[in-house]
Amino acid sequence: MSDKKNIQVCFTADQFSKYSDGKSTVVVVDVLRATSVISTAFMEGVKVIIPVQTLEEALEYKEKEGCIVAAERNAKPIEGFDYGNSPFHYINADVVGKTLVLTTTNGTKAIYNAKEHKVITASYINIEAVANHLIDEHHDVIILCSGWKGVFNLEDPIFAGSLATLLLSSGKYDSNCDSLFASRQLLNNANGDLFKYLSDSSHRRRLKSLNMEDDTRFCLAPPVKSTIIPILNGDKLVVL
Amino acid sequence: MSDKKNIQVCFTADQFSKYSDGKSTVVVVDVLRATSVISTAFMEGVKVIIPVQTLEEALEYKEKEGCIVAAERNAKPIEGFDYGNSPFHYINADVVGKTLVLTTTNGTKAIYNAKEHKVITASYINIEAVANHLIDEHHDVIILCSGWKGVFNLEDPIFAGSLATLLLSSGKYDSNCDSLFASRQLLNNANGDLFKYLSDSSHRRRLKSLNMEDDTRFCLAPPVKSTIIPILNGDKLVVL
Repeated sequence: MSDKKNIQVCFTADQFSKYSDGKSTVVVVDVLRATSVISTAFMEGVKVIIPVQTLEEALEYKEKEGCIVAAERNAKPIEGFDYGNSPFHYINADVVGKTLVLTTTNGTKAIYNAKEHKVITASYINIEAVANHLIDEHHDVIILCSGWKGVFNLEDPIFAGSLATLLLSSGKYDSNCDSLFASRQLLNNANGDLFKYLSDSSHRRRLKSLNMEDDTRFCLAPPVKSTIIPILNGDKLVVL
Repeated sequence: MSDKKNIQVCFTADQFSKYSDGKSTVVVVDVLRATSVISTAFMEGVKVIIPVQTLEEALEYKEKEGCIVAAERNAKPIEGFDYGNSPFHYINADVVGKTLVLTTTNGTKAIYNAKEHKVITASYINIEAVANHLIDEHHDVIILCSGWKGVFNLEDPIFAGSLATLLLSSGKYDSNCDSLFASRQLLNNANGDLFKYLSDSSHRRRLKSLNMEDDTRFCLAPPVKSTIIPILNGDKLVVL
């Protein structure tokens, strides 16, 4: 009998019900850009993040004391909101101690779908901290890729491949999941240059067309690292 | 303006609603083994195949003149049925002119989910015929991988990569679909030896544990090829 724990990778938020088991720790990934924004915002001093599903819910917080509201749809910011979905919006901004209310196309949906589980969020900014936490905790893990409007994207599985590789190298995890195998294959094919590799992906082209090349470079190879692990507590993300 | 048609790859039967547009030609793939069985059965003389969703529906045909019933669940045949889901069951058997009623874990579900579209089925047995038909027809194409119980498997995307490569090489198709990109990457990684590559996949291990190595070799590198294209007509598959 192996006492190794299991890792699975789910490619889209909508498919989570196929993986949900009520006990695994769920790591939500939306590397371009929601979970990278979440890592950055906490690093810059945001105290609480409330992921909400709709623009209407987000706007209800607009006049509340200590709240800033941020929204993105189809990779674009929305008029009437304080911030968008670029990590740079949160750097050197007046966010210390604030509550950030965030709604994005894909990432907040993934968090919502997994909310009956222990949910943490991961990005290349906090990947080592997340891996170390999971290895210490030693539960079964589901890496939940947000995808793009319900379909497979390339960047989240590649991140899943990076995280899974860290977990497997601890010797405490195993997997027989085809999507994890595929994720690691895609990561290996990127050969260390994620930015170049993703230039063939539809999402990258979309980001490029919206002048978001700087965001993409930041999210794929962040210049700083964070030890903060965001965890869902009720309907709020807080620092673990 | 390009007059190239679009190709998309959908990784599981359950996700088809995200891709469905009412007009694309849908190519259903369940390479291990439903669509390989379908190719083989037609090649051996079966006249009509009725894909049904439940064992109960299949059994209703058991006493009907000219019908043979076949079923598989979790890669195993089912007691009370004439045939299972091995292509070898249909070779040199008395199937000429018969109606085959077939229910499988994943493949028949994919066919059912796409039934509002033009649906054809593909396997390595008829891949060239399917590619030539699609290139001649020149419509948008959705390659619908059956997956395994609602989750990603490795073998169907690899087949999708093979078929997409044939279509793209005609110069008449284009794609900005991340799942198609990933499928072709996985195919390339297999480096021409699908059997060896899939030995790392959960499904291949499952098949191996059920002594289905011969079926797997047959489906991945069939010793014969067929020019038959099965097409869904109402609730029946017939020869195009």
